[in-house]
Amino acid sequence: MLPTSGYAALTANAVLKPFSFERRDVGDHDVLITITHCGICHSDIHQARDEWGGSLFPMVPGHEIVGTVATVGSAVKKWLVGDRVGVGCFVDSCRTCPACREGLEQYCEAGMVLTYSGRDKEGRITQGGYSTQLVVDEQYVVRIPDGLSSAGAAPLLCAGITTYSPLRHWGVGKYHKLAVVGLGGLGHMAVKIGNALGTEVTVLSTSESKRKDAERLGAADFAVTATPQTFTKFQRRFDFILDTVSAPHDYNAYINLLKTDGTMILVGVPDKPTLLEAFPLILHRRRLAGSVIGGIRETQAMLDFCAEHRIESDIEVVPIQQVNEAYERVLKGDVRFRFVIDLASLK
Amino acid sequence: MLPTSGYAALTANAVLKPFSFERRDVGDHDVLITITHCGICHSDIHQARDEWGGSLFPMVPGHEIVGTVATVGSAVKKWLVGDRVGVGCFVDSCRTCPACREGLEQYCEAGMVLTYSGRDKEGRITQGGYSTQLVVDEQYVVRIPDGLSSAGAAPLLCAGITTYSPLRHWGVGKYHKLAVVGLGGLGHMAVKIGNALGTEVTVLSTSESKRKDAERLGAADFAVTATPQTFTKFQRRFDFILDTVSAPHDYNAYINLLKTDGTMILVGVPDKPTLLEAFPLILHRRRLAGSVIGGIRETQAMLDFCAEHRIESDIEVVPIQQVNEAYERVLKGDVRFRFVIDLASLK
Repeated sequence: MLPTSGYAALTANAVLKPFSFERRDVGDHDVLITITHCGICHSDIHQARDEWGGSLFPMVPGHEIVGTVATVGSAVKKWLVGDRVGVGCFVDSCRTCPACREGLEQYCEAGMVLTYSGRDKEGRITQGGYSTQLVVDEQYVVRIPDGLSSAGAAPLLCAGITTYSPLRHWGVGKYHKLAVVGLGGLGHMAVKIGNALGTEVTVLSTSESKRKDAERLGAADFAVTATPQTFTKFQRRFDFILDTVSAPHDYNAYINLLKTDGTMILVGVPDKPTLLEAFPLILHRRRLAGSVIGGIRETQAMLDFCAEHRIESDIEVVPIQQVNEAYERVLKGDVRFRFVIDLASLK
Repeated sequence: MLPTSGYAALTANAVLKPFSFERRDVGDHDVLITITHCGICHSDIHQARDEWGGSLFPMVPGHEIVGTVATVGSAVKKWLVGDRVGVGCFVDSCRTCPACREGLEQYCEAGMVLTYSGRDKEGRITQGGYSTQLVVDEQYVVRIPDGLSSAGAAPLLCAGITTYSPLRHWGVGKYHKLAVVGLGGLGHMAVKIGNALGTEVTVLSTSESKRKDAERLGAADFAVTATPQTFTKFQRRFDFILDTVSAPHDYNAYINLLKTDGTMILVGVPDKPTLLEAFPLILHRRRLAGSVIGGIRETQAMLDFCAEHRIESDIEVVPIQQVNEAYERVLKGDVRFRFVIDLASLK
């Protein structure tokens, strides 16, 4: 077993603290990755505080992991020592169900093995990227293209793929009007990727303070959702809405902003259900859909797309000793747009 | 103006009573239809009682209308006196918006002119098919194919097209598993049409008493939704769910019965919003959609399809004097599966 240092929540009510644990030995098909960077995702906080239920403790969060291959197992074919690689939200899946065989491991019928707060096939609790190193099967690793910085690429492993996958799946592109709801870690990636796809992007945000950011990121339009006129002005305007907000909000008001046959895609997960009316869906044959991250193949395609279009996450790099402060700032929306932990601070 | 007899609700609290009113004179592009049959749709009751809001009184309900062309305007090209025709849920639309030009008049940007409880372009309240005759623009009339009886065809104008349109729009067919929620006026049409499309249909109903009907109508499977095991047994089973229920119910439980990328389509309109969770949509990229009736072209296609497949509605014919009793029986679910008023009773 491989002694590893990290930061963990020992219970749902605890702040994160230094934590020592063991990684499994490197198996024939495994790689050992020395982690250099790990993004802080809002869902890390939800899970560290058990707000969705089912959290497993002690928990080392982190699923936006970038690092360098340090060791390869005897049967590893895809990776060489020194390769710069990434690991996202899952580290294994059943590999045999229709979803896995299609490269949609995120929809694995048996359930994907989450990078942390999951259980691997031997029943051990998985631990995430707020740590020095990670052992993972080579099939669940992606390459970080040369054009991307490690810190700026880390959030692509969750925030990037979470927004890229539905935009590609639903064929969002030129001649479409896309609204992005919420300009945080997910939203700012959606604006960048939507832009690169040639789509006209409008940002809908609770806060006027995000207007300049929206413009800088390339949004064609911006509106504040606290203003009721926003919901009149944009009625039946959009082909697609990508809703990145994980606080409860009124879906009906947004659905009314879709054209006939428009689709609103949820990628944020409010911790409470919200009241839905049937009429806004029915009267214009609209759809409310959901999407979660993406498969390994699509995650690699997303990274290559981002490198080609020079897209990274806007980040603020912090040492791991500031992780609890960073959590509080995430909850206040006080980050533009993603914290990334520099794991050199843990050495 | 043309003196016309009907049955109307004078207020939201009133039972239907005999009512005399005037139809407009037959314009150049109009036909006058002598109504022979009109179905009783659950939405007639919702609207006569103003349960959705916005009802206009006095109200002659009825939008499943079959009759015979009695007079044609000077410019009418499509119809001859004596033709057997139908009129559904709308009698006009803007005719110029993208939806109208695509033949999707039901999604008209200006709003379709409802057959009753609407306002025509001159601002007059429209009145429906619980009456002796109707004047309507020739473009908003469909032909009843020879193979269909007038009484059995009447409910196709709403219940038929409401279920046919989404099944065709979403491409439901062979190799798909379809669940139909609710076995009433809409549901029994969905089973028949789903069957004719070669789909494997499962009926999900609150009542065990519907099992035999489901089997007789051609359902491959049946389950009672009051039994919690139903929601375990059918987890991730269906490609599509057509939800015909207009009483509030838990969408989340049904969404969990969809496969990855499955779609649940709402065609029933509960009078209250229901609590929706994001996770069931997100975790398997599922969609919740809505659909309302169909355009004129598609309504004609549906009638032709039904004639070809020998599909009519299962009906109980009543004289108009029993309409209030029929309403009470609809509310109790005591009809297999649609009341149709024989307008000869009004002469």
